[in-house]
Amino acid sequence: MPSIRKLLVANRGEIALRIMRTCREMGIQTVAIYSEADRHALHVRYADEAVCVGPAPSSESYLKADTIIEVCRRLGVDAIHPGYGFLSENARFAQLVREAGLIFVGPSPESIEVMGSKLAAKAAVSTYNIPMVPGTPSAISDRAEAKVISAQIGYPILIKASAGGGGKGMRIVEREEDFDEQMDRAVSEAISAFGDGSVFIEKYVTSPRHIEIQVLGDQHGNIIHLFERECSVQRRHQKVVEEAPSAVLTPEIRAEMGRCAVDVARACGYYGAGTVEFIVDDQLNFYFLEMNTRLQVEHPVTEQITGVDLVKQMIYIAEGKELAIKQEDLEIKGHAVEVRVYAEDPTNNFLPDVGTLQTYVRPQGNGVRVDDGFEQDMEIPIYYDPMIAKLITYGNDRTEAIQKMIRAIDEYQITGVQTTLPFCRYVMGHSAFTSGNFDTHFVNRYFTPDVLKPAPDAAEAQLAAVLAAQLFANRKPAATNGTAVTEAKESRWKANRR
Amino acid sequence: MPSIRKLLVANRGEIALRIMRTCREMGIQTVAIYSEADRHALHVRYADEAVCVGPAPSSESYLKADTIIEVCRRLGVDAIHPGYGFLSENARFAQLVREAGLIFVGPSPESIEVMGSKLAAKAAVSTYNIPMVPGTPSAISDRAEAKVISAQIGYPILIKASAGGGGKGMRIVEREEDFDEQMDRAVSEAISAFGDGSVFIEKYVTSPRHIEIQVLGDQHGNIIHLFERECSVQRRHQKVVEEAPSAVLTPEIRAEMGRCAVDVARACGYYGAGTVEFIVDDQLNFYFLEMNTRLQVEHPVTEQITGVDLVKQMIYIAEGKELAIKQEDLEIKGHAVEVRVYAEDPTNNFLPDVGTLQTYVRPQGNGVRVDDGFEQDMEIPIYYDPMIAKLITYGNDRTEAIQKMIRAIDEYQITGVQTTLPFCRYVMGHSAFTSGNFDTHFVNRYFTPDVLKPAPDAAEAQLAAVLAAQLFANRKPAATNGTAVTEAKESRWKANRR
Repeated sequence: MPSIRKLLVANRGEIALRIMRTCREMGIQTVAIYSEADRHALHVRYADEAVCVGPAPSSESYLKADTIIEVCRRLGVDAIHPGYGFLSENARFAQLVREAGLIFVGPSPESIEVMGSKLAAKAAVSTYNIPMVPGTPSAISDRAEAKVISAQIGYPILIKASAGGGGKGMRIVEREEDFDEQMDRAVSEAISAFGDGSVFIEKYVTSPRHIEIQVLGDQHGNIIHLFERECSVQRRHQKVVEEAPSAVLTPEIRAEMGRCAVDVARACGYYGAGTVEFIVDDQLNFYFLEMNTRLQVEHPVTEQITGVDLVKQMIYIAEGKELAIKQEDLEIKGHAVEVRVYAEDPTNNFLPDVGTLQTYVRPQGNGVRVDDGFEQDMEIPIYYDPMIAKLITYGNDRTEAIQKMIRAIDEYQITGVQTTLPFCRYVMGHSAFTSGNFDTHFVNRYFTPDVLKPAPDAAEAQLAAVLAAQLFANRKPAATNGTAVTEAKESRWKANRR
Repeated sequence: MPSIRKLLVANRGEIALRIMRTCREMGIQTVAIYSEADRHALHVRYADEAVCVGPAPSSESYLKADTIIEVCRRLGVDAIHPGYGFLSENARFAQLVREAGLIFVGPSPESIEVMGSKLAAKAAVSTYNIPMVPGTPSAISDRAEAKVISAQIGYPILIKASAGGGGKGMRIVEREEDFDEQMDRAVSEAISAFGDGSVFIEKYVTSPRHIEIQVLGDQHGNIIHLFERECSVQRRHQKVVEEAPSAVLTPEIRAEMGRCAVDVARACGYYGAGTVEFIVDDQLNFYFLEMNTRLQVEHPVTEQITGVDLVKQMIYIAEGKELAIKQEDLEIKGHAVEVRVYAEDPTNNFLPDVGTLQTYVRPQGNGVRVDDGFEQDMEIPIYYDPMIAKLITYGNDRTEAIQKMIRAIDEYQITGVQTTLPFCRYVMGHSAFTSGNFDTHFVNRYFTPDVLKPAPDAAEAQLAAVLAAQLFANRKPAATNGTAVTEAKESRWKANRR
């Protein structure tokens, strides 16, 4: 069984650091790669060795498969961890790594290939009992048949162009009476957009939740699941708040989704850490969406509630070890919430707002974990995903985890760029979130930039309180007490406005 | 039942911050007090309100009971949390707080009083079945009787002057043959030192471990224990490394110590969080030492393995709530280690080394908690305990917690003052510690300043490796690769020498 002594992380930022931390705990030497823009990045300083692989654009550095493999050869590296993004779901890269005699800390190229294609994935899982969004298995031309199927599925339904994409030729049909009219429009849109009028019919999930299951499989056919992550709060179709467990799943549905996720993994001979994504409706019906064949950004919430270090397990699996964790050993302990801190302006459509971190002070204390790749005075490069950090809190139950998250967000000090923190703070205090009654439409339904503007009265009331406190505190020389009280208040206030 | 809306923390540094964080999570307003030396301290900035209570010396600020109560009156404070040290075990202060109509977040003045006196504590627990260090119940003058008792206890025994203290008049007797000679010396030392020759006889525990049990009691007579903390690694008779659970206790002895600790608490009508300290010998016989009637410095390791926020529970108890946690709900999950980061020079008898924190970068990541009260560029005042931080790691088992601790210590960057970190790093790697086979003599037995000196060969070998890596990495312009590799190596190296 090969033992990994030196590992190269083919990634940057927080995930590179997170992987290297586990390596260090395991006594594995680490190699960083970096682009010219990341010369001063923390992952470069953290690694035992670091090599520049090219200019700033990813295509000229972090995506240079051959260069990265060449670095491994030169430095005597045994294994490559791809992190997420970049080359992590690139089957060709996994194949090149294998051919170079190196260990790819992830699944086989074949598994990546299968799950990378919607059609191949669907075919692979077809012999298992995996619920898929109900619909026509192939394109339909017979309108009468289409109507019968739609009635069976139940309205609302979705008509989708076979050749479609980007919402073109896509129509929601709320009631059977509207079917013909919407079908006409869909077909004509499809013809004009793609020159092909064939369409699918699919159930339209009105209140969809995005819930995913973490799986771990070894190279000996053992596969387990580590429960779910709820990732329904999204902006621009990208996750921004995640939690584990979900506030709505019952133990029965959790077990059933877990079984399905393990079957999906089995269907493609999966090993390593992977995530099976489901769409869940308001009746808790769940449907398989896709499988991500890599470590997920939001993996820490699973680590917090299970006590399992997923990167450590990935390394053991890559070394050929058998999974030491059995399904029956696992139980959910407590509750974890993660918010992604992006350098984005939530009052301006969440557009990236890169720049220099003039102030950067992390929250601390019991049940707070910050996974990041920056420190004060660093610049957030424009070339990459503008995520600054992942802030994770952990408590005995959901309420405690949320209370800790609110405290931690209030404690986080970032100036120089706008961030998603005020938005995440808003989510934590919103009754839809605290009650658990939300879906992927959260942002559209409840968020406008106005909600982040502080009520002017509150600021005035706070100032009055400061002045009153100063008056009362005036036993010692005024300058002594007054200054300090005011400082304390101002820093709170600034924090609140952030 | 009174609900606490505003709480004053009568303390400073990390413990003040730690208490305020829980208050914020509970929606309780916080008030800091500070001395003139602590004007810029983090606890002052963190609190909702902050009041200077006097000059730097504790006796003129943090110990000014009347001033602190007056601040509470002025600012409409409901409750005072005393932290540890300062006024936390001052029965008179607890009484004054009560008389002022305020809530003391701690036990009753009566409990503090009883447990503050060795004799009163002994008398209080006498009706319970609590093992005490075997010995004579009162001073002895009959030498023949003393010899009989010594034989019953079993050698080695300790002869202690009744009026004693500071080791004067104290003699270890290894064998019965030496009894008369040592007794003569003890009596004559006692007479010359205290003018009183009466002595006690006590069993001498040769390989003592310091193991303590955390208890929580409410005001309705419910008392539970939260397992043990192992605190045997000490320097200058003060704890520096703690862990939970202990590496040596069996489930039976743990349960038995827990029962005793609950009985000790019951013996003094205890409510709040308290710690019952035991001395444990190499046969795992345990003897009651004393009870600390306050939150303990090392409480976080208990929080990590039980999931219980001890400060939150203290506040609930002070409000008069019944304990919601039952003994049978509690179980030990995983393992936690804490090291105390003091501004001390381990190569110079652990003498305080105060100054300015020129570099101060905390470790981060999965399973790492830092409770501190400082940030970079702050000065560590000479007036107070020189503890900078508590570094706590948590893993699924003892090995994982230690591996994380080693990683976290290596990651901690502190310059400007000497710290206990290199010593703690040495402890983590020492076979006596990793095997669990250690006692309070660890420092005397295994530590000399020499062990912290880096082997010159290692540094040279590392430099050679850097140069080799640079040569190999020279595909891109030399300045690009070379600089970064060297930077990475140097920062590691600096960290190691720290």
